[in-house]
Amino acid sequence: MSDFDKRYGDYLAYFNKRLEEFCDKLDCTPEVLRRSLTYSLMLGGKRIRPVLMLAVADAIKTDKERVLDFALALELIHTYSLIHDDLPDMDNDDFRRGQPSNHKVFGAANAILAGDGLLNTAYSVLFDQCFKGNEYVSAAKYICDCAGVYGMIAGQSADILHENDEIVSEEDLEFIYSRKTGKLITAATVTPSILNDGKYFSELKMLGNKLGYLFQLTDDILDVEGAFEKTGKSLGKDEKEGKLTGVRVYGLDNCKLRVDVIGDDCIRIIDGIDGDTSFLYDFVNFVKTRQI
Amino acid sequence: MSDFDKRYGDYLAYFNKRLEEFCDKLDCTPEVLRRSLTYSLMLGGKRIRPVLMLAVADAIKTDKERVLDFALALELIHTYSLIHDDLPDMDNDDFRRGQPSNHKVFGAANAILAGDGLLNTAYSVLFDQCFKGNEYVSAAKYICDCAGVYGMIAGQSADILHENDEIVSEEDLEFIYSRKTGKLITAATVTPSILNDGKYFSELKMLGNKLGYLFQLTDDILDVEGAFEKTGKSLGKDEKEGKLTGVRVYGLDNCKLRVDVIGDDCIRIIDGIDGDTSFLYDFVNFVKTRQI
Repeated sequence: MSDFDKRYGDYLAYFNKRLEEFCDKLDCTPEVLRRSLTYSLMLGGKRIRPVLMLAVADAIKTDKERVLDFALALELIHTYSLIHDDLPDMDNDDFRRGQPSNHKVFGAANAILAGDGLLNTAYSVLFDQCFKGNEYVSAAKYICDCAGVYGMIAGQSADILHENDEIVSEEDLEFIYSRKTGKLITAATVTPSILNDGKYFSELKMLGNKLGYLFQLTDDILDVEGAFEKTGKSLGKDEKEGKLTGVRVYGLDNCKLRVDVIGDDCIRIIDGIDGDTSFLYDFVNFVKTRQI
Repeated sequence: MSDFDKRYGDYLAYFNKRLEEFCDKLDCTPEVLRRSLTYSLMLGGKRIRPVLMLAVADAIKTDKERVLDFALALELIHTYSLIHDDLPDMDNDDFRRGQPSNHKVFGAANAILAGDGLLNTAYSVLFDQCFKGNEYVSAAKYICDCAGVYGMIAGQSADILHENDEIVSEEDLEFIYSRKTGKLITAATVTPSILNDGKYFSELKMLGNKLGYLFQLTDDILDVEGAFEKTGKSLGKDEKEGKLTGVRVYGLDNCKLRVDVIGDDCIRIIDGIDGDTSFLYDFVNFVKTRQI
């Protein structure tokens, strides 16, 4: 096992312990509500955002315990967005992480409420943090704004708006990428900075944005070239739905070239951060070469 | 014009000024996202929750300016819940406040995002308040928990679960009433207390719960006996959808008797509050006799 794999596993275990504790404590009724929330949370997944947040915390020497519940809230927000994205009225996706998506198990009405419930619960977790002081409020508000109508939701809205555009525009693609994917990943990289006197704030903000771009580029490529057994998602959906993707704007080969260029951008940003950044370098490579 | 109508109008104008300012400042893109958010916010409505919050603030001498943005957030949360409730996969309601519901104008996908966006924006408003001190965090968290999976969302989930129950139970009805409607109204009555050293906290919590009950009872009665021109909602829907309502559990006549009983409960609670409570007494009567 590589050093990267080991550290990824350690971050994952540290985060999953908190997530499981959170799920165990959840005792809302009716039972179908509790089950629909935990179903999607426990489907697994790579936990990219929490792992990245913990790794950045280590790199800039922010106490991991301080960021843990922010990582939890971020994963709750990410999971809500997947449940709503998969709905019949949205991307209509039957599979997520190789399992039936939330609405296939619980029905669309319960899936809408499960998404609403996770979003709301994320903020309940964050308000608990706000009692600790204003830097915690700042971090919570930053995550909220990344998730909101100037962030992820704007990206999702533009994603729908530009379905089946006949003329594709790089500018629209950038808008969608930077918001739909980039904003929550930026929340992951920036939170440890806000909780540590703004250390490397602008570098980490840039890094989040670039990593989000990289992540979405590889997502688009995997939608064309991936294997369901690995991604756990329906494939070829972007083209079928006329989505505005990197593959559509740049073509598959140029998309792959861009992966290298953006990957190099990430490396250069990490070069400017003084600390234990070895995991972050490997993380860039992990996103570049991911099959899942 | 009665004194009550005048004061209701004053509270409404004070709140609407803030809401309009908020809508004017909203400049998220794409334009369809901004329009879908403001469409539902500006449909009008009685603004029961903000008006009640402001009136309670006056009654217990909490500065109205302190609660104004909490009232705003509460109305954003209430509006998101209406948009999602009206969706084809939920109650499938084509009208709201006499106008086409959000998804009839913008489509279901945009309506899902509009709801998500309003919920998220409500919390962005509340995080801004959290910088002011821990009592503000407490108030924000209280609203969040009223809206969440132990609050309103639990009620909505139970509401769906008990559709078409053959055997109806008073206990299930109480669960749905107290959460689906009662929790946000309790948030309205309790917030001014949290921001004022917990003054009359338990009385105001009880009052919110009872007012919510009263509000939902009259809602159920209006669904049977109301006029679309006044309510602005499709009528007779509860029965068509097999909803568990007060009318179904108690029968229409007993439901009306209960309105008087619960109304008296509210009056007795208000009797225990020392302050300018004349508006609150009239408010109870307003809910009891409402046609809208």
